[in-house]
Amino acid sequence: MSAAGTLPVEISAINIGLPLFAEALAAQDTPVTSVDWRPPAGGDEDAVAALTALWGRHGRSVRAANEAAVQAIEGCQPQTIDVARAGDVIDALDDGVLLHSGPPISWERVCDPQRRAMVAAVLFEGWAGDRDGARELLAAGEVTLKSGTEHRHVGPMTGVCSPSMPVWVTDDPGSDRRAFSTLNEGPGDTLWFGVGGDEAIERLRFFRDHLGPSLSRLLAGEGPIDVFSLAAQGVNMGDELHMRSQATGNLLLRDLAGGLAAAGDERSARFIATNHHFFLTLTMGAAKVAAMAAEGTDASSVVTAIARNGTDVGVQLAGLPGRWFQSDAARVEDALLRDGFSARDAAPDIGDSAIIECVGLGGMALGASPAVAAFFGGDAALARQRTEIMRGICVGASRRFRVANMSGAGTPVGIDARLVSELELTPQITTGVLHASSGAGQIGAGVAHQPVAPFRAAVAALARELDECDAPVRDG
Amino acid sequence: MSAAGTLPVEISAINIGLPLFAEALAAQDTPVTSVDWRPPAGGDEDAVAALTALWGRHGRSVRAANEAAVQAIEGCQPQTIDVARAGDVIDALDDGVLLHSGPPISWERVCDPQRRAMVAAVLFEGWAGDRDGARELLAAGEVTLKSGTEHRHVGPMTGVCSPSMPVWVTDDPGSDRRAFSTLNEGPGDTLWFGVGGDEAIERLRFFRDHLGPSLSRLLAGEGPIDVFSLAAQGVNMGDELHMRSQATGNLLLRDLAGGLAAAGDERSARFIATNHHFFLTLTMGAAKVAAMAAEGTDASSVVTAIARNGTDVGVQLAGLPGRWFQSDAARVEDALLRDGFSARDAAPDIGDSAIIECVGLGGMALGASPAVAAFFGGDAALARQRTEIMRGICVGASRRFRVANMSGAGTPVGIDARLVSELELTPQITTGVLHASSGAGQIGAGVAHQPVAPFRAAVAALARELDECDAPVRDG
Repeated sequence: MSAAGTLPVEISAINIGLPLFAEALAAQDTPVTSVDWRPPAGGDEDAVAALTALWGRHGRSVRAANEAAVQAIEGCQPQTIDVARAGDVIDALDDGVLLHSGPPISWERVCDPQRRAMVAAVLFEGWAGDRDGARELLAAGEVTLKSGTEHRHVGPMTGVCSPSMPVWVTDDPGSDRRAFSTLNEGPGDTLWFGVGGDEAIERLRFFRDHLGPSLSRLLAGEGPIDVFSLAAQGVNMGDELHMRSQATGNLLLRDLAGGLAAAGDERSARFIATNHHFFLTLTMGAAKVAAMAAEGTDASSVVTAIARNGTDVGVQLAGLPGRWFQSDAARVEDALLRDGFSARDAAPDIGDSAIIECVGLGGMALGASPAVAAFFGGDAALARQRTEIMRGICVGASRRFRVANMSGAGTPVGIDARLVSELELTPQITTGVLHASSGAGQIGAGVAHQPVAPFRAAVAALARELDECDAPVRDG
Repeated sequence: MSAAGTLPVEISAINIGLPLFAEALAAQDTPVTSVDWRPPAGGDEDAVAALTALWGRHGRSVRAANEAAVQAIEGCQPQTIDVARAGDVIDALDDGVLLHSGPPISWERVCDPQRRAMVAAVLFEGWAGDRDGARELLAAGEVTLKSGTEHRHVGPMTGVCSPSMPVWVTDDPGSDRRAFSTLNEGPGDTLWFGVGGDEAIERLRFFRDHLGPSLSRLLAGEGPIDVFSLAAQGVNMGDELHMRSQATGNLLLRDLAGGLAAAGDERSARFIATNHHFFLTLTMGAAKVAAMAAEGTDASSVVTAIARNGTDVGVQLAGLPGRWFQSDAARVEDALLRDGFSARDAAPDIGDSAIIECVGLGGMALGASPAVAAFFGGDAALARQRTEIMRGICVGASRRFRVANMSGAGTPVGIDARLVSELELTPQITTGVLHASSGAGQIGAGVAHQPVAPFRAAVAALARELDECDAPVRDG
């Protein structure tokens, strides 16, 4: 601080963009405040042109559409009403069909863990007598592979669903929107972890013959599951609802305990009680329904799906329903791997579960879950910081998912592909890591930062779409 | 900042103690840093003399004793091993005896809510046919009242325990320490809330005939309850374990769900699932056992009981086992009361539950539970601040109760009566509020700041005790 009328005794500088100037000043002991400015979209000309259109001449309509899309997501209170046989409720899931996570893919390109899950599903259905036979059927195209996301189904990790598996049935009351998700298999050599051992197939028989029908009766007696109401409590009990949903699962178990005891159903009770991820696919089904509520909002750049099959990642926008924008699936960075495994062993990012991040949970709600932050070596403060970073690419803050430990702030909701593309800041997904080839199953967990390419492609497509709509109509 | 060789251009002041000087300087726009210095123990001469002895000539032994006491508390892993009929396991609880919360008291001085609970217990036991008859028995001294705390029992609020009630049996493995606590009655016109209506008496019959025996069989089958292990998870799921233990209770229910279903015990399952305070008395029993582990640590000024009966509050020290230091029970301040009730309606602070604060939970762990902070109009930051304030009167930080949202810091543990007395900063107890006279039961919840007098009396007694031990032995 200098007295009036004298020369300043301190000089400070503000540096915008490239750090070289700041480093030169700092070397002279001059205080520097650095502004992290980078050219938008990494300076990519096509991307800049699309962004210019979507922020400029279409800016007003995109903003209104995005607000409407977020309102549609937030206004949706999904209710899980039943558990049913997948083949009975999912139109596309005929005999001889398998659903899988991520965008559509042909057998040749299916990654190793997802192949193992498909083989196990074929055995479970009895379409082949052994694994060699199952692989031959799949390779010959005699089993049809379909993207679950395209048929209102979401599955975690390998995300394989076959007709005889039971699925959660989740509705958006007052609409005809309905989504489906498999029951979570829990730990072990399971299909979702890309192993699909004999024990896991036996567990699917328990699901089909016992747990599924039992849950169906339970829901009929104990009422539907208000998934997001439980999740809203869970985010104040240490869950971010993607990698961790233990507290929320316990809230559900509390609601079901009376019915389970009334039925004398010890086996289902023990399975639910010991599966820390039991709630995961409820969150996914509810998130899918909420995302569906936003789908078809013309001109909206809000992301309604980030689905990975371990080979490709596909992104969809509310304003371009059903259209995939794809690139290679990401590696899971910031991951904590089990002893004896390294990053080289990790399969690329996989699963439909990033639908959770599309509604303000998972990576968006990291600040609610310091325990999950530990997976990437962080603590509570870093977890909160990661949630704050995600605000930079989201349209709004959730009114229902409020985190007491973040001053009651709502989690970021409504990923705007424009912001992702412009800032080159992609959604962080809290997820598991599978082994790429050995069938070792889950080898860790961490945060998957999605590639920017599909978001950029989606933004370009939306800009073209809006330009075409604006173009003068040529012949009546 | 002034250039070298010139007069300073800024003047700052540090003000210690009385704020008048600071205010005068502040009025002249001079920056002031205020140090909140007050004379120790409010300047009370006797208290200062006792503190001088305990920090001075006995300081070394008191410090060592306090560290040993905290180690004893922290080293204790209480296990709840059974549920049994109180009269069968508590020696002092013969036919015709009632235990109650707080220090010993005679019927004439028993507060209204505790009287109502005693009357209901007499009816439950069949010692009288109606409420008038029960009151006559009690007034005539034909029912003997005993302090639960003196007989290894702890009860929340009115804390009444009669021989036919089932109690949790909690052990400190490897020792002969064992404590008892009633099953929590849940909401409604219950005894613990000082109502004791007919429905509550009927509920006690359900406890006696069904829930108690059922829990006893469950624990035999599902293993003992590692109370503090569950609590340590709970403090990272939004619980402080006194006013809120929902997440921890759900962890317990998760452990019991299989056994409840196997037994087909719908009634017990529904009772446990719908009682948000079901875990409370498990925490209390375990805290009592841990406090017992510290009792008898010579020279320790660590607090091992803060028990209130709605008339008196009694404090005990580890170094003076079994001796009460009492004063009038506090009012519950910072309370959120139900509509239609005011502070005038509130009974004084009541219950043995402050044993929870003696082991580093409840008010000590407020920072873990932003939801509880809402009861006194606070938020997560204020909750953390209140925990930090409590560090000022505690010997150490818990190694087992670590709060992720407080950078993993352990909760304050081992209330040092010297610090309480010197700073006149008393333990904050998160507790319920009962109606003083109408039988309306719980009318709110909040924080009860304990009076300083019993802590000061305890400190004086400890100083005398240590001086006497040091005095030369007169005749062999």
